[in-house]
Amino acid sequence: MKIITSIKEMQQYASRIKRSGKTIGFVPTMGYLHQGHLSLVRQAKRDNDIVVMSIFVNPIQFGPKEDFKKYPRDLKADSAQAASAGVDIIFYPSSKTMYPKDYQTYVEVVELSKYLCGMSRPGHFKGVATVVAKLFNIVKPDIAYFGQKDAQQAAVIKRMAMDLNIGLKVKVMPIVREPDGLAMSSRNAYLSPPQRKDALVLKNALQKAVCMIRSDEKNAEKIKLCMRKIVNSVPSSKIEYISIIDAAFLRDTKEIKGNILIALAVRIGNTRLIDNVKIRI
Amino acid sequence: MKIITSIKEMQQYASRIKRSGKTIGFVPTMGYLHQGHLSLVRQAKRDNDIVVMSIFVNPIQFGPKEDFKKYPRDLKADSAQAASAGVDIIFYPSSKTMYPKDYQTYVEVVELSKYLCGMSRPGHFKGVATVVAKLFNIVKPDIAYFGQKDAQQAAVIKRMAMDLNIGLKVKVMPIVREPDGLAMSSRNAYLSPPQRKDALVLKNALQKAVCMIRSDEKNAEKIKLCMRKIVNSVPSSKIEYISIIDAAFLRDTKEIKGNILIALAVRIGNTRLIDNVKIRI
Repeated sequence: MKIITSIKEMQQYASRIKRSGKTIGFVPTMGYLHQGHLSLVRQAKRDNDIVVMSIFVNPIQFGPKEDFKKYPRDLKADSAQAASAGVDIIFYPSSKTMYPKDYQTYVEVVELSKYLCGMSRPGHFKGVATVVAKLFNIVKPDIAYFGQKDAQQAAVIKRMAMDLNIGLKVKVMPIVREPDGLAMSSRNAYLSPPQRKDALVLKNALQKAVCMIRSDEKNAEKIKLCMRKIVNSVPSSKIEYISIIDAAFLRDTKEIKGNILIALAVRIGNTRLIDNVKIRI
Repeated sequence: MKIITSIKEMQQYASRIKRSGKTIGFVPTMGYLHQGHLSLVRQAKRDNDIVVMSIFVNPIQFGPKEDFKKYPRDLKADSAQAASAGVDIIFYPSSKTMYPKDYQTYVEVVELSKYLCGMSRPGHFKGVATVVAKLFNIVKPDIAYFGQKDAQQAAVIKRMAMDLNIGLKVKVMPIVREPDGLAMSSRNAYLSPPQRKDALVLKNALQKAVCMIRSDEKNAEKIKLCMRKIVNSVPSSKIEYISIIDAAFLRDTKEIKGNILIALAVRIGNTRLIDNVKIRI
């Protein structure tokens, strides 16, 4: 496995691979890898000749009061995990390389960025869409892999790729969970042991929602109320949103039918966690 | 010469060309071709194996009160001219193809879009950057050609290509003028015969500015004042801006030194015309 830090070198490598008729699978990450990331790598490995992973904590997707500086980083551990999962190239650029002096171009997916996390994190999805557009141009993948945990991010990227006619396929892979059901996230590292237990309210609330829907509950408000109660049962929690929306357009839905996404964002102490479940009725 | 209207067909054609090791030169236009466009084609022909021209009057770069509907169109004449200048493919998509229902992704080059034409045409360069980003993904050119007449557009596109790491070269070709000096533009077709004469004030003002600079005038305000007088000498004219700026960042400059762009936008009757000259001191 090789680590490339230069954009030009990465582009030249990608062009060489493409000219030789091989395919590139791409897993963009912010590092501090967990089994969720590695499940994307394994799928990329199955689908493509070459797997490129990017590790880049993207400053422009963090708000001024967010955790850009303290976001966990560990290139050494990441490299070992990436190599053993079958990554061929880690693309590991610096912020200065990605956003040189006078940088000023941004990509925005207007509608899908408005809802859910977009409400409390203005500019977040603009930062995500911009960096991913850049990474797609640098890595030239045939297929790019994203996790369903960041459901809105996946929807934004899919839409961007379609709207800007970027000729690649976006594959969204299922959420990977800890044995007790907590969705894997690099930010779980922030949780103290008691908070780690409290954090289970996210998946408990989602399980309750699925249960209610399976028992034929059609009223979204009723379901959200039950979820709210579960999350509020631990004092360390603070709900940012609990939403039941159509999975394609991320717009609120009152009645449970079609492709539904149930999503929530909750702070446990200072740690912002998200989780979701997709369900088809 | 072939006319392609489908995005997918154009992408497949471009991929085939690239796989065969040939290069693609790309001339994006809004049609109603004149010698300015054809000079781009001839340069593209010299530099590349295949020349693709797009003809697309891009709705999202026109303001609500602008001339999108009446913008001149003549595919038959354009095809004949393009073919005889050596275009291999005309890419001619519909608005619906380029902006299907639920389209919502935009590319913005923030700083360079603010000045000059950006002041009176808010959203114009966002529309330009967006459509060109799409066209680059569809046509996959090695080199793309733009005219210096739209100096700000060229600066915006160059910056976008650099910022988003689009691996292509942007070549900007000199302004082509009518025998009497009027910069060629599809919008010249709007001018009545007396307006056509009045329109010469743009190039007269620029010539005066160059003359003053050659005579060692360093004061930008003085030069702009003289230009203003020349343009105002015909009653049909209405100045939108007369600017002396640094050519790279398009920011106002007080003193004439380095790479300077002298640019103006003037309405002659209802027709908005632009012209400019680059000068190095």
